[in-house]
This record gives sequence, C-alpha cells and structure tokens, in this order.
Amino acid sequence: MRLRRAFSTSVAKVIPIDSELRTRAEARDAADPLRRFREAFHHEPGGPVYLNGNSLGRMPLRAADVLARTQSEWSERLGRGWNEGWMDAPLRLGAKIAGLIGAEPDEVAIAESTSVNLYKLAHAALAIQAPRKKIVSDALNFPSDLYVLEGVARAFGGELEVVPSRDGIRIAPEDVEAAIDKETALLALTHTSFKTSALHDMNRLTAAAHAKGALALWDLSHSVGAVPTDLHGAKADLAVGCSYKYLNGGPGAPAFMFVRRELQEKLVQPIWGWLGHAEPFRFGLEYQPAEGIRRFVSGTPPVISMLAMEPGIDLIAEAGMAAIREKSIDLGSFLIELWEAWLEPLGVGLGSPRDASERGSHVSLTHPEGLAITLALKEANRAILDFRQPDCIRFGLAAVYNSFGDVFEAMKAIREVLETRSFEAFREKRVAVT
Amino acid sequence: MRLRRAFSTSVAKVIPIDSELRTRAEARDAADPLRRFREAFHHEPGGPVYLNGNSLGRMPLRAADVLARTQSEWSERLGRGWNEGWMDAPLRLGAKIAGLIGAEPDEVAIAESTSVNLYKLAHAALAIQAPRKKIVSDALNFPSDLYVLEGVARAFGGELEVVPSRDGIRIAPEDVEAAIDKETALLALTHTSFKTSALHDMNRLTAAAHAKGALALWDLSHSVGAVPTDLHGAKADLAVGCSYKYLNGGPGAPAFMFVRRELQEKLVQPIWGWLGHAEPFRFGLEYQPAEGIRRFVSGTPPVISMLAMEPGIDLIAEAGMAAIREKSIDLGSFLIELWEAWLEPLGVGLGSPRDASERGSHVSLTHPEGLAITLALKEANRAILDFRQPDCIRFGLAAVYNSFGDVFEAMKAIREVLETRSFEAFREKRVAVT
Repeated sequence: MRLRRAFSTSVAKVIPIDSELRTRAEARDAADPLRRFREAFHHEPGGPVYLNGNSLGRMPLRAADVLARTQSEWSERLGRGWNEGWMDAPLRLGAKIAGLIGAEPDEVAIAESTSVNLYKLAHAALAIQAPRKKIVSDALNFPSDLYVLEGVARAFGGELEVVPSRDGIRIAPEDVEAAIDKETALLALTHTSFKTSALHDMNRLTAAAHAKGALALWDLSHSVGAVPTDLHGAKADLAVGCSYKYLNGGPGAPAFMFVRRELQEKLVQPIWGWLGHAEPFRFGLEYQPAEGIRRFVSGTPPVISMLAMEPGIDLIAEAGMAAIREKSIDLGSFLIELWEAWLEPLGVGLGSPRDASERGSHVSLTHPEGLAITLALKEANRAILDFRQPDCIRFGLAAVYNSFGDVFEAMKAIREVLETRSFEAFREKRVAVT
Repeated sequence: MRLRRAFSTSVAKVIPIDSELRTRAEARDAADPLRRFREAFHHEPGGPVYLNGNSLGRMPLRAADVLARTQSEWSERLGRGWNEGWMDAPLRLGAKIAGLIGAEPDEVAIAESTSVNLYKLAHAALAIQAPRKKIVSDALNFPSDLYVLEGVARAFGGELEVVPSRDGIRIAPEDVEAAIDKETALLALTHTSFKTSALHDMNRLTAAAHAKGALALWDLSHSVGAVPTDLHGAKADLAVGCSYKYLNGGPGAPAFMFVRRELQEKLVQPIWGWLGHAEPFRFGLEYQPAEGIRRFVSGTPPVISMLAMEPGIDLIAEAGMAAIREKSIDLGSFLIELWEAWLEPLGVGLGSPRDASERGSHVSLTHPEGLAITLALKEANRAILDFRQPDCIRFGLAAVYNSFGDVFEAMKAIREVLETRSFEAFREKRVAVT
C-alpha cells in the first residue's frame, strides 16, 4: 500500500491527528479480506486516487483478455460468432447478474441501456394495469428515470407523481406509501439515490405497492455490485440496472433488466424486435414473443461492449456481496469520521445519511464551491471525484478496488484544497464534470 | 490475388469454361481500382471465401488500434473519457455516416439498435400524424421491422398494412402507391430487401407518401456502404440503419438514425432518456428535449462497440460510394453470369432481380437444399454464405474487400457441392445459420 507523503510541513502542523489516522488506514488495508481484488483491476501508474466507481468502474485486467478474444472472434469467426456464444450472451450474462441481486437465473437479460430497459418494463407494466395509469416515483430518483417514466405515464394518458424529499437527503417511506393509491399502476424507485446515496426499504415499499394493487419496479444502477438486494425476498416485480458502475462493465456497457418469472408471460414489452421473437430466424411476418425473459430483448446487442462486462461481473461474484457490503460500510464510516474531524469545521456538509444502514456505497459531501474543489483535485492529479449540481461532491467507494488509504488520501487532498483555497482558481471554469 | 486450385481433375473435365472465367476474374481483380482496400481488412489465413458481409462485415485492421485505444481510455482515463470524446461520438460518427447516405452532418445520430431506433422514429411520426394511424410496409421488409412497426401501429390504435409481393422477389411500386391513403401516417420501407436484394425507388415512393400526406421512413441497413442513397434528393423524412453489415462496424455495433432537419423540432421520440435532454448534467426533474438530432438519443451509448465502428465508416468514405456501387454491380453481374453457366442447369434459381439497377449488393440464389448446401460449403471451409428460409442462399458482395476471385471460388465450390451431392450429408442438420 503506497501512500503519498504529507502535502507540506506547514499544513501538517495544524492537523496533528494525521499520523494516527494514516496508521489506522494502513492497518485496515493490511487486514482487508478483499485486498487481493485490488490487483485484479488496472491502476494507472502515478494516477490520482479514484473514487468515481459509482460513475464508471475501473477496468478489470481480465477485460483486456476478453477484448482481445472478441476481436479475434470478429476477425476470424465473423458471422459464425453468433452461433458460438454471442447470441447466448444476453441471457448467460443476465444469469450471472441474477446471482448478485437475489433473482433466478432465468429472470434477467442484458439489453440496450438502462433508459431503454426502464421504458420497456414501465410500458409493459402500465399496459396490463389499465385502467390504472399513475406512476409514483420520488424527487431523489435519477432524473433520467423520471424523464422516461413521465414519457410512459403520458403515453397512457396518466401522470407521474414525484414524492418530494423532506430533508433533501432521503425520502420518507410513509410519504411514498401515502402517494400510492388505487389509481397507481406502478411504483418505480431507484434503490440507492444517485446523489445522496439514501437507500429505500425495498421490502416495505414493494409491499406497500402490492397492498394497493400496484407493481413495483426497482432501478438497481447504484446498488448492483455494491449493496446486496434480494429481489425475490422483497417480492419485487421488475428491475433494471446499469453495469458500468460498481459492476465494472466498461463505458456504456449494456444494461440489464429483471422480470419476475410469474410476470414474464403476462407482460408484452413495446419494442417488438426480432431477438425477442419466439423464432427469430424463422423470419415469419407476425410477431410472436419468445417465452421467458428473452421476450424483453429487442435488437442486436453490442457484442464487444457486452462481452467486456463479464470479468467485472465475475469479480463481484468472487468477492461476494456480503463481504463487499461490509467493507463498503467500513470505508464510508471512515470517510465520515475524517469528514467530521477535518472538513466539517471547514464548512463542508454531509449530503448522505449518516447511518450506514440507510446509505449505499457512495458518500456525498456538500460545499458551495463543490465544482471548483472537484476540478482543483483533478487538476492537481490528487483525486478523481465527481460533482453534481448544485453543491454535491460524490465519493464512490468500490470495495473491490478502493482502500482505506484511498479514502485517507482523497480526504487529505480535499482538506488541503480548502485550507490553501487552491480551488479559487477553478471558480470560473465551466468544464463539464460527469 | 491467391486463387485456389481446381477441386479435382475429374470435376474440372466436365466444366471446360473454367479457365477462361478464372482468367477473366484475375484480370478484373488486377484492374480493380478498389483493390488496395482489400488489404485494409483482416483475412484469416487459409480461411474460406467470405461472402457474408451483408450479415457481418469483415474487421478493418484499424479497428484493432481503436479497440486498443479505447481500452487505454477506459483503464487510464476512466470517467474523464466522457469529456474527452465519448460523449461527442454519437453525433460525430453520425455526421460521418450522413456523408454516405445523402444527409447533412447534423441529421444523423448513433444510438442503440436498428429496432429501437425504428421504434422511436415510427412512434414519433405517428404521434404528430394523428388522427392518421396506419403504417404501410411490405412483405419483403426485414421481419423485425414489421414486428416493430406492428407494435407501434397498435399502440396508436392503428394497423400495419403489408403490401404483398407479386413475384416473391420485388414489390411493385404501384402496389405500394395504392396502399397509401388518407389514413396513412407513415410509409416505412427497407431500401434493399434483406432476402431478395430488390431495391425500392426511394424518390418515387417518398413522393407518393408525401402526395397523400404521409411521412416516409427508410431502413438503410442493407444499403448503407453498398448502395448510394440520397435522402435529401428523395426528400426522405426519416431513416434508420445498421452499421455492422457493409459499414463493417463490428458485431452488434450500435445503429444510426436520420431525421430531416425541418422535422427535428417537431418530433418527440418516446424514450425520454437523459442523453436526449437539453441539459443532461443539470439534472433537472423535467424532461426538456435537446435541440437538433440529439433529442432522439436516449441512454448511454456502448462506448467500446460504438468507437470500433469508426474505421469501417472511414474506409467506406475513402473508397467512395460511387466506386463501391460500380464494383458491386460488376461483382453481381459476374456472379449471375456464373450462375447461368454453371448452376441454373443444376436446378438453382435466381432469387434476386436480374437487372442490376433493381438490385442491392447481395445476390440470392434459390435451391430446395439451400440449407444443406450452405452447411456443406462451410464445413468444407470453402465459402461462408448464409441461408434464409425456405430456400434462399445469400451471397453478400462487399466491394471494399471482396474480389472477382472470391465470386469465382464460391460459385465453383457450390457447383462442386451440387455435382458431388456432398450436401446430402447435411440434410438432417438442424444447425442455426444466421
């Protein structure tokens, strides 16, 4: 475990607790049961601390082998590749993801993007829920989900009801429950909020939806690979999720969708493409949906991006969701301890629930100069974090490759940026930070 | 140009014209102005003749460099990649494709799959065409397009009218014209038929649609990179297409869509994802579509698959659509000449229009044992063709890498399979051929 030296003697003087915390970080890393997984990912030599795996996960080293193999298949096997693994991959990889989210292997498929999958499943849900046509979601959901859901609700002549947050950090479950009524066709929530990291109680809210006759759809984009979920235990109906965050599937890797087995034959998704047809190569003129989860697939999958997902999924499965969650909580608690000791006195707020049981695997800190701070850290090659309007700095904690040392270094860097006010040079920058 | 030796002396005896035709193929290849492009693609050593580029194009050698670069971007730049090229790629690559199809650079975007793009554009078209709700297509369209279109028509309470073929090879333009009426919202056709290679007259049928107040949507999947189209000249409204066939973009490479500039602000596509939002990173709760073609994008693109498309597009642009079409016609005419000399007497039919001006860049031959013949050619490592039910063998002619020698060898191989009846061993095989 390599740790950077203190930034400057003068700064170190005013922070006498550094050495004890650093020693503790080193000890935690030495005792980390997931330590060996760090070496399974590419780390750029001399690169900054990377706490942005909630946006795009690091590349598993094995992904390079998969890309090389896929390139050979394209160049040497050409169209025969379809019969030699490509065609089966959406369901084969879906089955692997199923094992991470509490689903059965035949309930998950890979296709397109989270937006498209959410559209398909929400649309299919509203179609069988007629005359109900209201969708309930919340103001901390990923805005893209709200856009998609609003579009679907309007297509059915209904509306999207967005439950507000009382404190800007979490959504009160009783407020969600109050919004679900006899007109509600679908409750569609994101399990871990993209911004605040607040967790919904999947069991309680799914039950609340069912009690009123609504279906429940969960977006697991910020949970899969980071926070254990038990879709079957919660009796969830539908789910979607992204594979390029904590699953480390690669930039824009295709997304997944889950449909509870009993619902699969009842639902008809709206995009009737050939790969969801019962017999795609019979080329009949009439659409006949396939049995099972495959009917939710539409077009040809992006093979190179799709196959590159597999090493990331495998590494998460090898590490195990329980061990990942345990370390993720420890990393988050350590970060919050450092925030309290170093940053709260400097005017930095906590934008995530403090209680680990209410929080996903990232922690958000707030500061009016959040964008400038994030840019200063990046420019100095100290840490890659991300910024969300208006004041939110997100620290993504990926248990398979992030260390306590990473958290220590990033928090130390942000403290130095605040103390030296080096962020001021970045105030006027209008750089897009994703 | 390496050509294989004659299959056996005994066979050669009964076909005295071989040597003259072989000499002619060699001469044509020697004089081919596109000859140098063949070396820009990967050819597997000792591999069979590949005439399946209408299904999946060969890998440009430069694609390996792009894959290596993208892998470095993922591993080294991580999330910063979005600001360093990934985010712009859907429109940047779209602009390159625009140059191949007679569109303006700001009228084409890359997204998802042909099925999803077709769904979006057909849906957007029907939404502004109310109360019209009929879609007209034809029985030679790719069945997946018909499935998607049927789904869209039904979603609006309308219906899909499928114009039949009189001869099984082409669709009479007057039959299409007769089907377009005052109820018709959209005419949606595939420019080159996936099976028979018959071409529609884009100018005539677009004008016919407009004359009745319908919009015209063209699927260019089997045309782009092979048959020049002039979307603006034809006044086409909408188009979609695939990039893994004659564009050589890689397996399942994302697809493209075209929306005529004047229509862009009028249409609202149904899948309201964040990347089609006016300000995707402002994270407002209300959907506000972006200006221009970007509003037709929904979710995060599969970056690795998307970037791998670029070398294929560039090679087609470098070769030039006019030169590609000229050579494609010559290859097809040579193939039909060989068919007439060798295969028609053996009971093989021509399943494509004979007149090159009515034909795209593949030629279909028909035989009741088509599947067994295709499998025999593949098993003997002689030629990769593909088969479409019930009797159609497709010969894809990719002008940038196929030679007259390829055509000669494949036709010679199929003749030998028929003469020796070696296909009989493959009659019972139930192998999927894609």
